Amino acid sequence: MPKPRFQAPRAADWQPPAGKHAADFKLSEVDPAATPWSSGDKEKDKQQVDAIAQELDELQNLFYADGRYALLVVLQGMDASGKDGAIRAVFSRTSPLGVHSIPWKAPSEDERAHDYLWRIHHGMPRAREIVVFNRSHYEDVLVPVVNGKLTRERTEERYRQINDFERMLCENATVILKFMLHISSEEQRVRLQARVDDPTKRWKFAAGDLEVRKHWRDYQKAYQALLRTTSTEWAPWTIVPANSKTHRNLMIASIVRDTLHGLKLRYPPDPPGVAGVKVK
Amino acid sequence: MPKPRFQAPRAADWQPPAGKHAADFKLSEVDPAATPWSSGDKEKDKQQVDAIAQELDELQNLFYADGRYALLVVLQGMDASGKDGAIRAVFSRTSPLGVHSIPWKAPSEDERAHDYLWRIHHGMPRAREIVVFNRSHYEDVLVPVVNGKLTRERTEERYRQINDFERMLCENATVILKFMLHISSEEQRVRLQARVDDPTKRWKFAAGDLEVRKHWRDYQKAYQALLRTTSTEWAPWTIVPANSKTHRNLMIASIVRDTLHGLKLRYPPDPPGVAGVKVK
Repeated sequence: MPKPRFQAPRAADWQPPAGKHAADFKLSEVDPAATPWSSGDKEKDKQQVDAIAQELDELQNLFYADGRYALLVVLQGMDASGKDGAIRAVFSRTSPLGVHSIPWKAPSEDERAHDYLWRIHHGMPRAREIVVFNRSHYEDVLVPVVNGKLTRERTEERYRQINDFERMLCENATVILKFMLHISSEEQRVRLQARVDDPTKRWKFAAGDLEVRKHWRDYQKAYQALLRTTSTEWAPWTIVPANSKTHRNLMIASIVRDTLHGLKLRYPPDPPGVAGVKVK
Repeated sequence: MPKPRFQAPRAADWQPPAGKHAADFKLSEVDPAATPWSSGDKEKDKQQVDAIAQELDELQNLFYADGRYALLVVLQGMDASGKDGAIRAVFSRTSPLGVHSIPWKAPSEDERAHDYLWRIHHGMPRAREIVVFNRSHYEDVLVPVVNGKLTRERTEERYRQINDFERMLCENATVILKFMLHISSEEQRVRLQARVDDPTKRWKFAAGDLEVRKHWRDYQKAYQALLRTTSTEWAPWTIVPANSKTHRNLMIASIVRDTLHGLKLRYPPDPPGVAGVKVK
């Protein structure tokens, strides 16, 4: 991964290299406390997040009218890395008319009876829709890998299947943005402790969360492997330094906005015979 | 329907009577230009809508945490009655984490191969979720009735089926709010004309919209019949005078908020052994 150019942040600078340099990528070399999108003024950054959130509402309207694309935003990250918070901030101004989120949980018995992409496929956005995945099919190359339930061979197979699946989606007009919310182990500790200490958040806390935390290093390793292998031309991963919540929101909001701008959205042509009609 | 008491608006005053007085209800006697929820100051009303939208975001959090209920909000109304606009205004501040809307369109071939409630059932909110139906299963006792595709007997049968279905949902902890957005024929004319005249809205306009408008009276009759028959104790209809967009938003937002307050939501008890835990 090239050194980020702080003077002019670009999503591409925060994407693992594809092709033959992929194997060189080291997650541990990405600083979770970096703030490349930040202006240096936190209040200003917060206002900027809100301004972009407003702009996203207008862009979503146009995205809907245009009708050519679907947009999938994938958020992955360790517990307490801020997936919920990012959704709340970035999509706080867009109405549920055009955006919805799917919080993927452990699969049901029926879902487990199918291949692991079956339920994911079902949750994909339709044309005109924006869907945000809160966790995703990438859990299926994280959890079983860390728990030793998936051989190396089967893991590689899944990477390929996921790449093929995402390519098919992309070829059929689904735009895919994948964000890995990158926090430090210490930051996670602080945030989990805050959950325990806050009576309005304590109910969310499961003993399992501490179990998962014990496997921090294994998860980082599993993330690194998937970032190396599934950051493709058609669906690249962007690593979001997320120790700062404001920076995390600003970076994600900016990239979503830039992506929508890049689609050159436009209103479709008038239906025949509508212009000039007088309604009686 | 009793004369609304303007001094203290209550949802109940805008619901068709249930029981033996149901047949007395006349939709034409409800003034679409009424503004019972309004303070008389439009700017103040708009600020109030926004304030309630903010409050709904907090209430949604608590609704999610509480976990005992699902909430279904049904919006029905003629073309241009403001269903999209209401969703936009009322749920403009709630994140897609907890609220999503389903715009029901004409059924697919697969959906038509099932009973008409099959796809509706699938779209129901889970516990903790708020789902807004933009149109609903009530289209199935409007469109075919107006088009003469459903006998009187079959129509009555559907009313009963819908009532039974909604009772089952309610008994299984889904709270149901049904809003009929009531506009005048003249107001619809003005709004449709505005769609034709606005190049950014023209693409939405279908020749079919004018066809449907020709059946205005038949639709009003079909609405009246369903309002008489499907406004139940467990899922009452509220008729929203909707010529004024601000009033429409204010009335719906207020009733959704009051309903959530009425549920006496609360954080669930701490999971065992969490309070006091030190995260390492």
